[in-house]
Amino acid sequence: MRNFDEATITDAVLQRVRTAKDDRIRQVSEALVRHLHAFVREIEPTQAEWEAGIDFLTRTGQMCDDKRQEFILLSDTLGVSMLVDAINHRTPQGATETTVLGPFYVQRAPEHPLGADISGTMEGAPLLVTGTVSTADGKPLAGAVVDVWHSDNDGYYDVQQLDEIGELAMRARFRTDENGRFWFWSIRPAAYPIPHDGPVGKILEAQGRHPWRPAHVHFMIAAPGHQTLVTHVFAAGDRYLDSDVVFGVKDSLIREFASTPAGTAVDGRVMTQPYFHLNYDFGLKAETEARRTEERAA
Amino acid sequence: MRNFDEATITDAVLQRVRTAKDDRIRQVSEALVRHLHAFVREIEPTQAEWEAGIDFLTRTGQMCDDKRQEFILLSDTLGVSMLVDAINHRTPQGATETTVLGPFYVQRAPEHPLGADISGTMEGAPLLVTGTVSTADGKPLAGAVVDVWHSDNDGYYDVQQLDEIGELAMRARFRTDENGRFWFWSIRPAAYPIPHDGPVGKILEAQGRHPWRPAHVHFMIAAPGHQTLVTHVFAAGDRYLDSDVVFGVKDSLIREFASTPAGTAVDGRVMTQPYFHLNYDFGLKAETEARRTEERAA
Repeated sequence: MRNFDEATITDAVLQRVRTAKDDRIRQVSEALVRHLHAFVREIEPTQAEWEAGIDFLTRTGQMCDDKRQEFILLSDTLGVSMLVDAINHRTPQGATETTVLGPFYVQRAPEHPLGADISGTMEGAPLLVTGTVSTADGKPLAGAVVDVWHSDNDGYYDVQQLDEIGELAMRARFRTDENGRFWFWSIRPAAYPIPHDGPVGKILEAQGRHPWRPAHVHFMIAAPGHQTLVTHVFAAGDRYLDSDVVFGVKDSLIREFASTPAGTAVDGRVMTQPYFHLNYDFGLKAETEARRTEERAA
Repeated sequence: MRNFDEATITDAVLQRVRTAKDDRIRQVSEALVRHLHAFVREIEPTQAEWEAGIDFLTRTGQMCDDKRQEFILLSDTLGVSMLVDAINHRTPQGATETTVLGPFYVQRAPEHPLGADISGTMEGAPLLVTGTVSTADGKPLAGAVVDVWHSDNDGYYDVQQLDEIGELAMRARFRTDENGRFWFWSIRPAAYPIPHDGPVGKILEAQGRHPWRPAHVHFMIAAPGHQTLVTHVFAAGDRYLDSDVVFGVKDSLIREFASTPAGTAVDGRVMTQPYFHLNYDFGLKAETEARRTEERAA
């Protein structure tokens, strides 16, 4: 095989990648070649534009470290993350809707007892978060692991300022009690721009787009026999709900961060100042409903 | 805009990127979103597969440094580089055919006088390279810059072993004489596998493909009023001519590396041992024939 031209190169590459032994690798490789070549054929890049593309991808990879995942930002801002999310969560049926993981999740965040204040040394308006974790048909799930993380008052996560604050904050794992309940204290998160000092930020600017996300709290909730839920709860009234840069907002995930006067909170804590209260009741899908994903992984 | 699902997310992202002021950025962004989403819809990645994709792209970027360009390797092995090359060089009309730049080009290689031996301290079978540079209709081009680079006897470029050999070798710039001629000495390059100890190598292995390229000498030739030519000349008889991992071989670019007995070579050098002789006469396209590219860049 040689002498490839515009008419023959795509079939030549397809023929070459068909030698993959693994069915899935063959399927993904063929699809990648077809769609990537179709993209190139449509835009007809000059050599200089091709070089700019190579350079963009290289800089995007090199922007990544243990505090920054620029390729996830790229996937998020191109709507790919939400599309993958939608494909993998087709039948909510009473279960909580899902949204993107985002680039700020940390595996094995510290576990705290229910009711703990996880704001560390961060300053901001106090926020009480309460909720329940249940099956999709409403039966409480005791011992579910509730992983939470959110930004500070200025829109920055702990991992973005770890050198200054010294330890993880506004991030923890809890286990639901025997009634499937969880509660904790933190500070109210703010809307924030995704990190936009890198290649993805330049793209957003060139596309005439702002980099903002509405204020939200991230949740990843796991319970035996159930599909792990990855979602956010968004603050009602936020100005960016309709223009979230990563396309993540769903009405079912919006709640009031209710302004509450000083006094004894629902968990018994005596508050000498006003605070916000967010409540959300989560429903998890049974694993059998996630069969498609399991089959794929098998 | 919110509540995006599989049916609506692609249009939502397209609507968002249409705010780009620059026509070309808008066009490329829209095409990227359409083709990328179509790819995702076809393969329906699990979350774990999406994560593997993010991880692959990240590792590919982080493999890049001043001696290694893993994203060019990826583009080359997916046939994208040759497709872009074909799109940008549609009407050879007597001009030399083009092929990929590859990842081992170095800007501003040292200029040498015609006839120089550029093998430095490298050992291998001597190779005399001769040729001419002309217009597409055969008029000699004096003072054309002929940038050449090639691998050693083991298939490695200078930049891959710079720590050991200390300086660039098998790489130089020449200027054609008043008759458009150039000639120089080096060592015969070998077939070689592209660097396959990184993410791209893993992909090739998974696709059941070998990583080899047939032996070749790279040329980049520039002359005022003409489109810069990027090409290789391949060694006739090489076992990888029909399975070049980057799809770069064209019949018109294959020449004998002619085995020549000891004696006085065509440039007057007295050789006490046999050597190889490669001759290639290049034709450059006038710049007016490259108008499409110029218009795009303007």
